[in-house]
Amino acid sequence: MFKRVVICGVGLIGGSFALALKSAGMVETVVGVGRRPETLDEARQLDLIDEVASDWAVALKGADLLLLAMPVGQMNAVMEAVAPHLEPQTLVTDAGSTKSDVFAAIYTHLKHHLANVVPAHPIAGAEKSGPTAATAGLFQGKRVVITQLPESDPQAVARVREAWAACGAVINEMSPLDHDRVFAAVSHLPHLLAFGLVHEIQSRGNAEQLFSFAASGFRDFTRIAGSHPEMWRDICTSNRQALLAELDAYLTELAYLRALLLQGDGPALESVFEQASAARNAWAEKYLK
Amino acid sequence: MFKRVVICGVGLIGGSFALALKSAGMVETVVGVGRRPETLDEARQLDLIDEVASDWAVALKGADLLLLAMPVGQMNAVMEAVAPHLEPQTLVTDAGSTKSDVFAAIYTHLKHHLANVVPAHPIAGAEKSGPTAATAGLFQGKRVVITQLPESDPQAVARVREAWAACGAVINEMSPLDHDRVFAAVSHLPHLLAFGLVHEIQSRGNAEQLFSFAASGFRDFTRIAGSHPEMWRDICTSNRQALLAELDAYLTELAYLRALLLQGDGPALESVFEQASAARNAWAEKYLK
Repeated sequence: MFKRVVICGVGLIGGSFALALKSAGMVETVVGVGRRPETLDEARQLDLIDEVASDWAVALKGADLLLLAMPVGQMNAVMEAVAPHLEPQTLVTDAGSTKSDVFAAIYTHLKHHLANVVPAHPIAGAEKSGPTAATAGLFQGKRVVITQLPESDPQAVARVREAWAACGAVINEMSPLDHDRVFAAVSHLPHLLAFGLVHEIQSRGNAEQLFSFAASGFRDFTRIAGSHPEMWRDICTSNRQALLAELDAYLTELAYLRALLLQGDGPALESVFEQASAARNAWAEKYLK
Repeated sequence: MFKRVVICGVGLIGGSFALALKSAGMVETVVGVGRRPETLDEARQLDLIDEVASDWAVALKGADLLLLAMPVGQMNAVMEAVAPHLEPQTLVTDAGSTKSDVFAAIYTHLKHHLANVVPAHPIAGAEKSGPTAATAGLFQGKRVVITQLPESDPQAVARVREAWAACGAVINEMSPLDHDRVFAAVSHLPHLLAFGLVHEIQSRGNAEQLFSFAASGFRDFTRIAGSHPEMWRDICTSNRQALLAELDAYLTELAYLRALLLQGDGPALESVFEQASAARNAWAEKYLK
């Protein structure tokens, strides 16, 4: 049970965390902090949060838990701002989609507080963002990856695990480096590719004609191109080394497919498609309900 | 009303066409023809078709309409086989996802029958295939692109339009060249990219770990990688000129994104993501219910 939870960035993730903790009866008061007063007002009206604070000293007074749920590009500035106001007992966790950069920010700004810092990443994106997209069930059955520091106190880790478990999440632990490589491959690269495809098409003279014939394949392939531009700018720049490695591996794959197309090599194309199709269907069988 | 409709390839598309015509009361007898007796038996048991024929002379005797719904790589062989058995009144249409190659096959094999040939492409894919995937409602509200020949008889075009309209489809007309360029961009390229992504990931030593952290973004982006390998082999080789042009345009886009990542150019990445996100959301607003 938490008495006072402070959430910085009350959008899809922060708002859903608040709702989930509330509906699990795990929190007394949720305080929202953020850049945009309109967003905080909206979150207050939607009962995601109980209080709005515009001052870190006020927000963090007596806080059990601080969740940093804004785009990762703001981690440095926010950690610097909160550092002087953290009380010894306040747990700090985050919902950043990248972890190496969050670690760097932590060791720069929260050196005095490391025992109570437990970074995490809930794997529950959506192409919708903002407080109105928040739901109490967003994390139900979803994974949360905890990337604890060597300095994280085991009790702090246990409390942060409890909070995410109360949201219905399944918890895994990973190193920040492994985390960033894995998500570059299965999340960040697909987002970049989907943004790129739509960006390329919308720039054409006949974009309207093209869009008018796009069907369900296009719909699903590009769903993630509707994602939050600033959030994805921050993820791509924060994790750019791992993402570049993934992009280069993919460009090698595309160069191979291009050669097969150029040669009209049907059997080799079919073999690629068969391996992909078998792997995709096995994945769906195992991981989709 | 059709008395005898013959369908070559009773899978998702052919089977759904049969079911839709039946439920609209537009057909008396549907005859199935295909390579695999098991598939035809299955289609018969599912009541997609009323008769199975293993001989074109028998199948086409008294036929009003022949739908060619097998993968486009078989168009030449099937047209060559049916040509001697077509009765003067038999309309010929197809469901091929590419059109320039279908035109070439028509002018090679059906020269004596051009007035009654009306090529078409129903835009209603699914990652599922085979007779069990067929539904009467598959084409409801979906587009069908008709690419008539200069020689197509207007009455033949009207009858083929009627058949697809009875399936609930919205009909458009295009030239085969425009058709192939448009679908290379909004369908064939996304399929190739999704196949490529899954193929690349499944070849890794840590594929299992990667797949285990793949979430909803990956799920939707790669749905079409579960598509029918042979069908997509044929589409990619048949339409490879247009597809190569699209792939090259996309590779240019990726080279640009790669440069932005390498430079860590956040503002330029955000601008790309904003344009893509705005275009994707406008598309969804306009075309998705």
